Amino acid sequence: MSNAKALPLLQPAVEPCCPPLTERPLTGEEAERAAAMFKALGDPVRLRLFSAVASHENGEACVCDISDVGVSQPTVSHHLKKLKEAGLLSSERRGTWVFYRVEPAVLATMGAVLTKAAAS
Amino acid sequence: MSNAKALPLLQPAVEPCCPPLTERPLTGEEAERAAAMFKALGDPVRLRLFSAVASHENGEACVCDISDVGVSQPTVSHHLKKLKEAGLLSSERRGTWVFYRVEPAVLATMGAVLTKAAAS
Repeated sequence: MSNAKALPLLQPAVEPCCPPLTERPLTGEEAERAAAMFKALGDPVRLRLFSAVASHENGEACVCDISDVGVSQPTVSHHLKKLKEAGLLSSERRGTWVFYRVEPAVLATMGAVLTKAAAS
Repeated sequence: MSNAKALPLLQPAVEPCCPPLTERPLTGEEAERAAAMFKALGDPVRLRLFSAVASHENGEACVCDISDVGVSQPTVSHHLKKLKEAGLLSSERRGTWVFYRVEPAVLATMGAVLTKAAAS
């Protein structure tokens, strides 16, 4: 977390979205950013896909590894795209396959918004 | 929080929804429950209202305290109802006003799902 340059493609999403929810009412802009991340996890199929990537070896998975959630391949691709747009996953093509990775810094930010709220 | 009987209406929502997201892929049922909570925070207006309650004195606020987010009173009521349905707020009528409270146990559960994922 000390070297932001290590995640050049994700800097906008990795910046803290907002203070802990108990600190003060969020501004409109803070709420827009934070809500977009929560919304990305607010769909059951998307959340299953996300946990499939997150729990895969090294927090990284190929589409071929995570398509057993009972929806079509285009639907899987759609949800993975949404997770990328929200900054929760990054992707990289390697030969035939696209690999997806969980972004721990973003998750930590989201978790802190909630758990600092819960602890105070 | 040591006396569960103080929150009789919220016990189902306070049960852990699921393991940390990195532990294993969520089942369909776990994903349904967890996604419903994330979805409740996935709207900017709802998130602003939620943070307004969470940051108010004692984590509790009257509707009269938190209506300055630029939407109509019926819209405020609609969003507060959604937050209640998701188990994130409880409410209590006191005379003329309904007071809303944040449920710290639910927030802690949601936070742990994310931050344990991030830490591993």
